[in-house]
Parts: sequence; C-alpha cells; structure tokens
Amino acid sequence: MRYLDKAAVDNIAVGAAFLGTGGGGDPYIGKLMALSAIEKFGPVKLFSIDEIKDEDFFIPAAMMGAPSVLVEKFPKGDEFVKVFQKLANYLGKEQIAGTFPMEAGGVNSMIPIVVAAQLGLPLIDCDGMGRAFPELQMVTFNLDGIPATPMAISDEKGSVGIFETIDNTWTERLARVATVEMGASALVSLYPATGAQMKQSGVHHIVTLSERIGEIITSKNRDAKDKLQELLNLVSGYELFQGKIVDVIRETKGGFNLGRMHLEGIEAFKGGEMKVHFQNENLVAEKTGQVVAMTPDLICLVDYETLSPVTTESLKYGKRVRVIGLPAHEKWRTEKGVQTVGPRYFGYDYDYVAIEELVKKAVAENV
Amino acid sequence: MRYLDKAAVDNIAVGAAFLGTGGGGDPYIGKLMALSAIEKFGPVKLFSIDEIKDEDFFIPAAMMGAPSVLVEKFPKGDEFVKVFQKLANYLGKEQIAGTFPMEAGGVNSMIPIVVAAQLGLPLIDCDGMGRAFPELQMVTFNLDGIPATPMAISDEKGSVGIFETIDNTWTERLARVATVEMGASALVSLYPATGAQMKQSGVHHIVTLSERIGEIITSKNRDAKDKLQELLNLVSGYELFQGKIVDVIRETKGGFNLGRMHLEGIEAFKGGEMKVHFQNENLVAEKTGQVVAMTPDLICLVDYETLSPVTTESLKYGKRVRVIGLPAHEKWRTEKGVQTVGPRYFGYDYDYVAIEELVKKAVAENV
Repeated sequence: MRYLDKAAVDNIAVGAAFLGTGGGGDPYIGKLMALSAIEKFGPVKLFSIDEIKDEDFFIPAAMMGAPSVLVEKFPKGDEFVKVFQKLANYLGKEQIAGTFPMEAGGVNSMIPIVVAAQLGLPLIDCDGMGRAFPELQMVTFNLDGIPATPMAISDEKGSVGIFETIDNTWTERLARVATVEMGASALVSLYPATGAQMKQSGVHHIVTLSERIGEIITSKNRDAKDKLQELLNLVSGYELFQGKIVDVIRETKGGFNLGRMHLEGIEAFKGGEMKVHFQNENLVAEKTGQVVAMTPDLICLVDYETLSPVTTESLKYGKRVRVIGLPAHEKWRTEKGVQTVGPRYFGYDYDYVAIEELVKKAVAENV
Repeated sequence: MRYLDKAAVDNIAVGAAFLGTGGGGDPYIGKLMALSAIEKFGPVKLFSIDEIKDEDFFIPAAMMGAPSVLVEKFPKGDEFVKVFQKLANYLGKEQIAGTFPMEAGGVNSMIPIVVAAQLGLPLIDCDGMGRAFPELQMVTFNLDGIPATPMAISDEKGSVGIFETIDNTWTERLARVATVEMGASALVSLYPATGAQMKQSGVHHIVTLSERIGEIITSKNRDAKDKLQELLNLVSGYELFQGKIVDVIRETKGGFNLGRMHLEGIEAFKGGEMKVHFQNENLVAEKTGQVVAMTPDLICLVDYETLSPVTTESLKYGKRVRVIGLPAHEKWRTEKGVQTVGPRYFGYDYDYVAIEELVKKAVAENV
C-alpha cells in the first residue's frame, strides 16, 4: 500500500492517456478532477492486487460515451460518487472494499481516484482492459463470463438508471442508447467484482504502469529520442510513424467519436503516409495502404516533441505526432479476446495479426 | 368488491379498446392473455376506488411502444409479473395492495388483470388517462406532480432496467430509447401510487365504464344504430363520420406507430371525406379540411356494422368504419392538461377547442 501524491496523479493521468490509444478522455481534465478531490477529501491509498482479499467486493466508476462531449459537459464532481453509491446500494453491499478503473484513459483512470478520495476507499492497481476500448462488453472480465450488470448509469443532471441484462452485449446496447439520450456522455458503475475475480480476470499493475509511462513522458531535460527509447523498452513498443496530421474526418454518432485521420510523413518518415481509423480509440493503422497495427494491439499517438498523448478529440490539422504501436495484454490475444475486440468485430474484413508480425513484415518488404 | 368473470373480462377488453382511441393494443390479444391467466390462477377481485385505503400502495403494469409490434412479439405471460415485482422489490414494498391499468386499451387494460390473477392481488377501478396516450408523462398523476419513477422496464428476453429521473419528461425519454432498443415494445411498471394519490389524481370507474361500453358493443340481436345511440348517450359522444378507409400512411418510428388515414364518406356521409392523424392513438380528425375533434378529446374508430373498436395497427384499405368523438376527462381539459396532451404538444399549430364547440360549429357551417 502507498498513498498517491500529486506527482503520482499527474503521471498516472498522462500514462493512462497514452494507454488509452486516443480514447478514455483528456488527461488534463482528468487530472484536474482527481487533484481537486484529493485536495478536498485527502490522499488516496493504492493497493496492489496482492493486498486485497478474495471475498471483498469492489466497484469501478467510469465515463461512457463520446470523450469529446466531456469538454463541454464538464463534471460537477459529485456525479461519480452518486453512480457508484447507487450501484452499491442496489447490490446491498454496505462494505465496498475499494474501487478501480474500468479502462486506462486520461479521464477514466482518474474517476476512481475521485470516488476513492471522496469515500475514503482504496484504489486497486487493476483494470478491465489494460488500454481503452469503446464498448462495455470489451472488458477482460467479460472474457471470463463475469456479468457487466447490475450496472448503474447517470447523467450530470441527476437522472439514474440501473440495468440487469441477459448478457453483456445487451448491457452495451441499453446503456449506449441511454448514454446517447443523456447527451452522448454518461457516468457508469458496472462489472462489480470480488477480489478473487479481479485477481483472475483483471489486468494487473495498470495504475503503476501508467504512472511509470507518465514519469518518462513528463521527465524534464531529456530529448524526445532518449525518452522514446525508454518508453518503447518499457512497453515493448514500436515507433510506427512520424507525421503531420493533414486531414481528420470525424463525427459524433451513436455515443462515439468516429473517424479517420491522415498523416503525411515527416523527418525519418518523409515521403510516407499513414491512415489511422478510430472509434473513440485508434483501431487500425495503415502505412502506405498496408496495415501495420490493428486492434486489440495498441496504437498510441503522441506529440512529436513532448511525447504527450494525443487523444482523438484533440486531433488538429498540422499537428506533428509520432505513432507508437504496442502489443495488447495476452488476454486480448486469445480466441475469445480477438472475437470480442479484433478487427472483424469493428467491421474490417481481415483476421487479427499480432503487431510483432506486422512490423517484421513491413520491415522485410520495406513498407 | 366483486369478481371479474370471463364475460366481464371480454367486455372490459372491448370497451377499453374503444377508449384506447386506436392505441393501447389489440383487444383480442389482451383478452386471451387475461382469460388464460384467470383460468390458471383463479378469479380477480375488482375494488372500487372507495374500497382502497389511503395509505396502501399500488403499482400499475403496462406495455409501452408500438402496439403493432406486440402482434409479432407475443407475450409469454410471466413478463408482466416480473416487471411488476422488480419495481415492488426496488421500492422495498413487500405488501403491495393491488394493481391498476395505466391507460385504457385492449392490451393495457388486460395486463393488470394478468398480474392480479398471478399474484392474487385485487385490480383497482382507476387508471391514469381515462383513454390511451402515447407517452409516459401523459398521465393524470403527472398533472398533479406525482413522479413516474422509480419505474421498471423489461423486454421479453429478460433484460431489466430501473429508472429514477429528475422529471417525467426524462422518464419518457430514457424509457423510450430503451423500448426502441428492446425491439419497439417493452413491459413497464411506473407511477407507483398510494390509495390517496389514486383517489386524488386517477381517473375513476374506468374499468366499469369499459365493461359497460363492451356490453353495449357486444350485445346480440340489436342493430348497429340502436347500439350506437346507447353508446353515444353513455359517453356523451358524437358520430363524426361514416366512411371507408381509402388510404393509410404509416411508419413504426421512435417506438411509435405514426401515420394518417384517409376516409371516403359512405351512407349518410356519402360525398364527404375525413383524415385522421395518429401517433399510436388518434390525435386529430379533419372533415373536409376542418378539424372536428382534437386531442385530448377522444377519436374512436369502430367497425361500421359491429361497432367493434378498430386499433391503428389493424387499419385496412376498404374497411368501413364509424368515427366517434367524445369529450376527454375534465383533468385533461385544464391548462396543464392541454399543455401536456393538447394539439400543440403534438406539433399542430392551433389551440385546443372542445369537441362540443367544434361539432356545434361544423353543424352551423354545414361541414
């Protein structure tokens, strides 16, 4: 156990936004929310997965919907706790032992910190994705058959819903239409889990990994190349491209930010081009027409100079970025994992190929 | 108190379908459901509003969505009880004293009978509309500020939702999108009420009125004209038109049956024409371009010969019908009533005029 100080929160927000692969919300907004909660209610304890009891009960809290909307519907601060407590009351569990993030992301890694601070609960170093994904059934708990419901959903105005569904696909369907009606973003608590379930089905050490990534990205007086090398070593990643954003096509639809960006190569990649497709999160990267990384592997955009994560809602014409690819958690690379979040699920007509293979192939063919 | 026998249920289904003004579901389906529940679980007690205690607690059960869909998604029978009990459990009220219909309609008057039979509860002679309306806030309880929530909603597959909203318009919005996602029809329990609230804000004697209407319509060995006169006397109604359906434009959209029918005059009305607009329920009747009846007053279509109610989902080219208009319950004719269900709410650009006035005007102008 240790306490999360201000510097830790800063770094977690940045690192989680990197792992958010474009989604999961803006780390600046997330950081402000978490720091203000800690200032008001006191510091938050971080428990490693080994420090929790199998029979204890934990509830995550998160935002669902189009991350771009959050910028306009800035949270009041108490809505996360409300949805969390709504689910706790519904479950009849008076002694919730802690909270944890649903996914890695600039906002969704911070919401549990707000809840933890406000309720004096510990944060657990575990999530349900090890990255961010756009839909509710795209959670490692789901791969092991753990139900997403009972879940609670609420808007910032105060309306609340509870769902109990026949499967996690129906959770996504019903929560999604409610989210869209609530204004394309909503607060959710779902996948209530025991300590044993988190040990078995969660992605461990995600908070500390985020923090470590954030430390590297925000470290001062180092050049980008040096920081990048350390980052790639840490996450077993690849620098796939360096480019300037020359076109972004996007729409907010069905409670998602959907779109595609076009990059023109710069520096070492001058003359090349890359397209990145996204649904909240970056899903597929094509270099000169050839796929070099695909979901569930991570496609992370960072600022060319500072390595700050670039979220889909902040994509801008002319921005210079690096595209980094890294292998997904092994749970996503199983048959059920690929069925749930692989390219075919998102409508791409090809099988999943691991980024390690794709990069090898691209190098061999000089793409 | 009295028991509802088979004949009573038959008549209630038919009479409620008449008051359903085209919506509220097909009385034949409704009747089958109720009779089969009574056969299986025993007879149902009907309590008048004076026989219930102020402090007792009652919950309605109903179907929401496009009535046409029910024909294809035929109920299994236990889903009404499930949604009722879900709400009862959520409210923590173990002793629910009875149930009542939300609206008059061929199916929605029968669902509470199914629930009453199955749970051994009495049915109360009261509803929340005195007719049928398409949206959840269009309930007399709402006019008195009684919240629609907590409400429960479920589909026939077994997924369940509970909503607690900031107002009854938000109940409609969230339940509507859930209904659409559930396949355009869903089961709901909402507007939980005390006996005192039902006495204050409900429409009384609706079950017995439906029964009496049904008796007249289904009475044998009488000619249509004679039965019609008795019916019009009972409900203070007007025969607005006799016609043949020559055109029906409709679509199922947003969880509603929307459309418009065109009638060509027959018999006494030969040479005339009428248009009737509907959103599940008939909303406006125009005779030769002049409005002769408008919401909240009731516009009821019946078979020309048998006087059987004609629901919007059963409109057919060539069918010969009579169009009957009758004044709405006085609660709907208040300022708040007209705001909630008057013509302007449904997008018609004119103020509400009572059917008595419109008929007088039409007669004077020989429309």
